[in-house]
Amino acid sequence: MQTWIRFQTGDGAIGFGRIEGDRVAEYDGPGFAGPQPTGATLPRAGLRLLSPCEPGKVVALWNNFHALARKLEKPVPRHPLFLIKPASSLAGPGDPIVRPRSYAGKIVYEGELGIVIGRRCRDAAPAEAAAHIFGYTVVNDVTASEVIGEDPGFPQWCRAKGFDTFGCIGPAIVTAFDWRAARVVTRLDGTERQNYPLSDLIFSPEQQVSLISQDLTLMPGDVIACGTSLGVGSMKDGAVVEVSIDGIGALVNHMRG
Amino acid sequence: MQTWIRFQTGDGAIGFGRIEGDRVAEYDGPGFAGPQPTGATLPRAGLRLLSPCEPGKVVALWNNFHALARKLEKPVPRHPLFLIKPASSLAGPGDPIVRPRSYAGKIVYEGELGIVIGRRCRDAAPAEAAAHIFGYTVVNDVTASEVIGEDPGFPQWCRAKGFDTFGCIGPAIVTAFDWRAARVVTRLDGTERQNYPLSDLIFSPEQQVSLISQDLTLMPGDVIACGTSLGVGSMKDGAVVEVSIDGIGALVNHMRG
Repeated sequence: MQTWIRFQTGDGAIGFGRIEGDRVAEYDGPGFAGPQPTGATLPRAGLRLLSPCEPGKVVALWNNFHALARKLEKPVPRHPLFLIKPASSLAGPGDPIVRPRSYAGKIVYEGELGIVIGRRCRDAAPAEAAAHIFGYTVVNDVTASEVIGEDPGFPQWCRAKGFDTFGCIGPAIVTAFDWRAARVVTRLDGTERQNYPLSDLIFSPEQQVSLISQDLTLMPGDVIACGTSLGVGSMKDGAVVEVSIDGIGALVNHMRG
Repeated sequence: MQTWIRFQTGDGAIGFGRIEGDRVAEYDGPGFAGPQPTGATLPRAGLRLLSPCEPGKVVALWNNFHALARKLEKPVPRHPLFLIKPASSLAGPGDPIVRPRSYAGKIVYEGELGIVIGRRCRDAAPAEAAAHIFGYTVVNDVTASEVIGEDPGFPQWCRAKGFDTFGCIGPAIVTAFDWRAARVVTRLDGTERQNYPLSDLIFSPEQQVSLISQDLTLMPGDVIACGTSLGVGSMKDGAVVEVSIDGIGALVNHMRG
């Protein structure tokens, strides 16, 4: 199990590293790219964390937990249901979630497990899928929920979830992470709002990678956001939202109105 | 008016250039990146054309022509309705459109005008939008149409349009192109199936760039596919589809089953 981060140092330089206790061993690239150690170790406390990868795309799942499907009375899907969040939506730990100027409606958090792809992946058989997963991270799949149904003929999933800063990812990528035993916990201004077990997933990470890779090529650093479960709610301007998964860490962002 | 291409030479090298008669003046990067001429000129005939840019994302519009909106009895939208096609869906001139293994249903062509972004674009005012457009290209926004409605609760626009090779772009990017006077013509195995005027657009390219840039940052090389109009239809395996816009060129692809 390794914990990889991307960071910015005090002088503005961007680096990559592995956490070792209260220090970070610096590498010359992201963990999935076969990087070499630079030889430097840095105190963890002085680093500003960035999103731990820079996905070319985020594949975001809808209706992927049994408990939420039951509550919404949706049938279990036969294939992962997804939309694409563009790279431009990326935000890292500590970054503001910025309300779009054109939109005064509800903006909701969705705490999720994120799968980080390690190797180019096309048509991966189920048994091969795990080898394409570099590790796991935490995602807040932010959504301008009233945008979705604004037009009567076309549900605007990509727009509602694709605004700049609506793809919060971090704080780290953990390899060989046992997602089966983990829970996603979301706190809004310190109050717990989501607390659900990943064992309730409809499509496991391996199934997601295998099935989605039949549709589209997944690239190193791409992220699959596994979908959310019960407890989604809206964030007021100024609110602080924390999504955490034990063993990965806590992703904290705030709403900027 | 300049015509920019991306190409592969006989020895496999990838290059960029401007068409000058039957020759191509080579540059050291894409036209929107302020490239320098390499000094070489190449005979146009020997070059294999590639997609003229490599978009990080394709923003694909739905319901953006008055004639099609009338036919489908859809109201004119208040804001561009779009989905995201990922970079992994890109195909260039001459490339096959590959039927997904998992799908035996209808695959349809949608001939479209493509806007190629030249400069990073966020919150562009309508009057500023034109300055962010590098030029125009031709798009075939290929769609596995039966995927869209496969799940009763979630229309799968991104999946239906996001398969590898479903984002055909080319053959060139033309700057200072007068789209107002142009028509999109699609021929399937030589028979004309679409022939519609771009003057029928609901949101003009400048309006699209301005409004979409309020939602998400557009990057150099990103493409906005302006939506299609009347005459969409399905392509059998082996079919040859040509989308052309006078003044830009013809984008030819074939269906591979």
